[in-house]
Amino acid sequence: MLDELKKIVCDANLELVKKGMVIYTWGNVSGISADRKYMVIKPSGLDYDNMCPDDMVVIEVQTAKIIEGKWKPSSDTNTHLELYRKFPMMGGIVHTHSVNAVAFAQAGMNISALGTTHADYFYGDIPCTRDLTKDEVESSYETNTGKVIIETIEKKGYNPMDIPGIVVKNHGPFAWGENPFNAVYNAVVMEKIAEMDLKTFQLNINAEMKQYILDKHYMRKHGPNAYYGQK
Amino acid sequence: MLDELKKIVCDANLELVKKGMVIYTWGNVSGISADRKYMVIKPSGLDYDNMCPDDMVVIEVQTAKIIEGKWKPSSDTNTHLELYRKFPMMGGIVHTHSVNAVAFAQAGMNISALGTTHADYFYGDIPCTRDLTKDEVESSYETNTGKVIIETIEKKGYNPMDIPGIVVKNHGPFAWGENPFNAVYNAVVMEKIAEMDLKTFQLNINAEMKQYILDKHYMRKHGPNAYYGQK
Amino acid sequence: MLDELKKIVCDANLELVKKGMVIYTWGNVSGISADRKYMVIKPSGLDYDNMCPDDMVVIEVQTAKIIEGKWKPSSDTNTHLELYRKFPMMGGIVHTHSVNAVAFAQAGMNISALGTTHADYFYGDIPCTRDLTKDEVESSYETNTGKVIIETIEKKGYNPMDIPGIVVKNHGPFAWGENPFNAVYNAVVMEKIAEMDLKTFQLNINAEMKQYILDKHYMRKHGPNAYYGQK
Amino acid sequence: MLDELKKIVCDANLELVKKGMVIYTWGNVSGISADRKYMVIKPSGLDYDNMCPDDMVVIEVQTAKIIEGKWKPSSDTNTHLELYRKFPMMGGIVHTHSVNAVAFAQAGMNISALGTTHADYFYGDIPCTRDLTKDEVESSYETNTGKVIIETIEKKGYNPMDIPGIVVKNHGPFAWGENPFNAVYNAVVMEKIAEMDLKTFQLNINAEMKQYILDKHYMRKHGPNAYYGQK
Repeated sequence: MLDELKKIVCDANLELVKKGMVIYTWGNVSGISADRKYMVIKPSGLDYDNMCPDDMVVIEVQTAKIIEGKWKPSSDTNTHLELYRKFPMMGGIVHTHSVNAVAFAQAGMNISALGTTHADYFYGDIPCTRDLTKDEVESSYETNTGKVIIETIEKKGYNPMDIPGIVVKNHGPFAWGENPFNAVYNAVVMEKIAEMDLKTFQLNINAEMKQYILDKHYMRKHGPNAYYGQK
Repeated sequence: MLDELKKIVCDANLELVKKGMVIYTWGNVSGISADRKYMVIKPSGLDYDNMCPDDMVVIEVQTAKIIEGKWKPSSDTNTHLELYRKFPMMGGIVHTHSVNAVAFAQAGMNISALGTTHADYFYGDIPCTRDLTKDEVESSYETNTGKVIIETIEKKGYNPMDIPGIVVKNHGPFAWGENPFNAVYNAVVMEKIAEMDLKTFQLNINAEMKQYILDKHYMRKHGPNAYYGQK
Repeated sequence: MLDELKKIVCDANLELVKKGMVIYTWGNVSGISADRKYMVIKPSGLDYDNMCPDDMVVIEVQTAKIIEGKWKPSSDTNTHLELYRKFPMMGGIVHTHSVNAVAFAQAGMNISALGTTHADYFYGDIPCTRDLTKDEVESSYETNTGKVIIETIEKKGYNPMDIPGIVVKNHGPFAWGENPFNAVYNAVVMEKIAEMDLKTFQLNINAEMKQYILDKHYMRKHGPNAYYGQK
Repeated sequence: MLDELKKIVCDANLELVKKGMVIYTWGNVSGISADRKYMVIKPSGLDYDNMCPDDMVVIEVQTAKIIEGKWKPSSDTNTHLELYRKFPMMGGIVHTHSVNAVAFAQAGMNISALGTTHADYFYGDIPCTRDLTKDEVESSYETNTGKVIIETIEKKGYNPMDIPGIVVKNHGPFAWGENPFNAVYNAVVMEKIAEMDLKTFQLNINAEMKQYILDKHYMRKHGPNAYYGQK
């Protein structure tokens, strides 16, 4: 079942390797079926070499039940599910341990909107979530990771597609998009702007960007009158 | 029309990929015809894979009218045009989001002339432009980006070919040259010296270079009695 | 003798090159035979190009006598031996001069547990050893390097397989594992988290991770109820 | 004439490219003939692609006269000559603009001996030269660059083969060795330890290494009782 989605999710996982976003078995990408009943996700701790669509695991979104697959799904499965259940616009989700975004996660800092590279893709600072409590970590850790992402987005009150990524405190980046490849794309950009920000703060700890530049760049690409790219 | 220039501009854009200056569809290179009537530029948001000369867009310099091309031109087209109109010595222009130069742009800092690597190509600090006003950003943003580059150069009163690059505040580097490949070359050097400067400032925030070393190195390569390179 | 182990140790050494952990002849990996009588180790200062299993040197663990081999063994041989004699769970040991881990060694700092990337593999801070005394350096330097690693582990009282690496002050990282490949794996991860930590401290010098996140991540992968990876 | 040396010098120049030490036409390596009458050096500003032994330029060491070659020699020729005339043990010299060593040159800082990676090759801090005076720069700049390197070494009173490299203030690294390949090797190591030092100082600005560790590591590799490597 879901052969096309399994191929897409598998290829999107392999794209992480090509973009230098992961080493060994790190990272995972998932996608959701059009009817939003099933999630397809990378197996837990499986090598990328020789990974093929048939290795992907199919999970029922509402029940978290494994429907198909010869492997155990990613240990972050419940974080992905939590997000898909909450946000119907998410079609793909990715989690990595890319170095620069992890640095912000470990520092407990937002990735601030400091330039147009950021503004072209993320309409505002990329937030860092709060600390999970001991209880949240010890019971249903992965589900609670999803919940704290949702809480962060809801507290700030933005559409998650306008800022399609987040850093989870002491953990690392999650990104999403309309589909799995889109999610990987956003994860790669997020890693790049994390590197830019880290270097910017080394030069000027007070760096910032005017709101109207953020508005302009985001809107020329994503607004109703967008004129970036081909129609 | 302009088949040769389209090939040159296309190849110069692909050179950005080879030099690791861009990811995805980022960056753009343009060139101007010998009679300075037409600019050839990369399409907006087009993938570098399989990009060919026929994809380039031809624009009339004075009117900004699209003369030929199957795609929309780069969204930065008006910045390029503004510079070509003002500076008759520019034959190629390039814009990227290369990480180290962007860090200076986001920090709002000049790339200071701290060493001979810089002095071999840029006769003085590479300036960072001032903030654009809200009005400048909201109306004709790309044209005003060109104007603020011109304003910066004119205020300092130097020949733009002596410092063939600039960082636009909160945005990123623009570089230029006699031709598109020369512009890419200068962009690559600028990225490298931005990296050197960033690392230098981490070691010594008060680093500087004597004016006479700057003079010597620039002149041994570009002065009337230059002796660097082959005749 | 020990043909299979020689092949494994040789391949694990070559893996260091593939992972960008060493240049020239730097670094060395060893493995120990199942009966723990013999250690197989890379020759001293030999090029990785064309290195083959037959180049490996076989050493008797208790006596440090060379049993087989056409080359002198790694100059760090006695450090490896000291560790194998003390810790029966170590099956492979690796030493490199990878840049980020060396930075912590030179700074005399532990690689702090700041995030889940660390917690997935190392159950706590990766310690930096104390200064060796003049006497320890001048007499039996390599043996004393082994001894100070043991002293550091014993003083803190942990199982070395729970934190399978260490940085030796002013020197560099040692890592170990159940077998040579496992040791290399841990060395690669250690280098990556050293890079993450260095960047984290640039953003927030007070960064830290709650103990319960460390516990959770280490245990979900290595604890009695581990659920990461395939059984 | 000197066909073998021309091949060696050409290959050593190409090695700079392979090791990622140079971009474009940057950097130059030279070698000296066994009788120390002739220096062979890379041409000025020539591309590395398609560079062949026949492109090398032969210079008479005492007179600086071009003896053979179809190109102008490197603009740094007189710096190389000055060093060969002074130090009979130098068989090859290299100059690059490698990023991390340049950062120390631009910062006007020695590359401190902070660890055993350094101690394995450089018996003490790698010095940074003083500022050249205006007069020294304006008259015979390249010769005076050689003279200030010699002055720095003589003032400290060490054998230049014990610390086979230096950073020239505001300029960049020079390294040397018994032969051209050895010089390139030392330049690569110097760049690596510059990177390590830069990162070390980001963690601990007061980092240092005990003299007896420096002694031990240098001597186990280069002293009369050296035991590193194969006989």
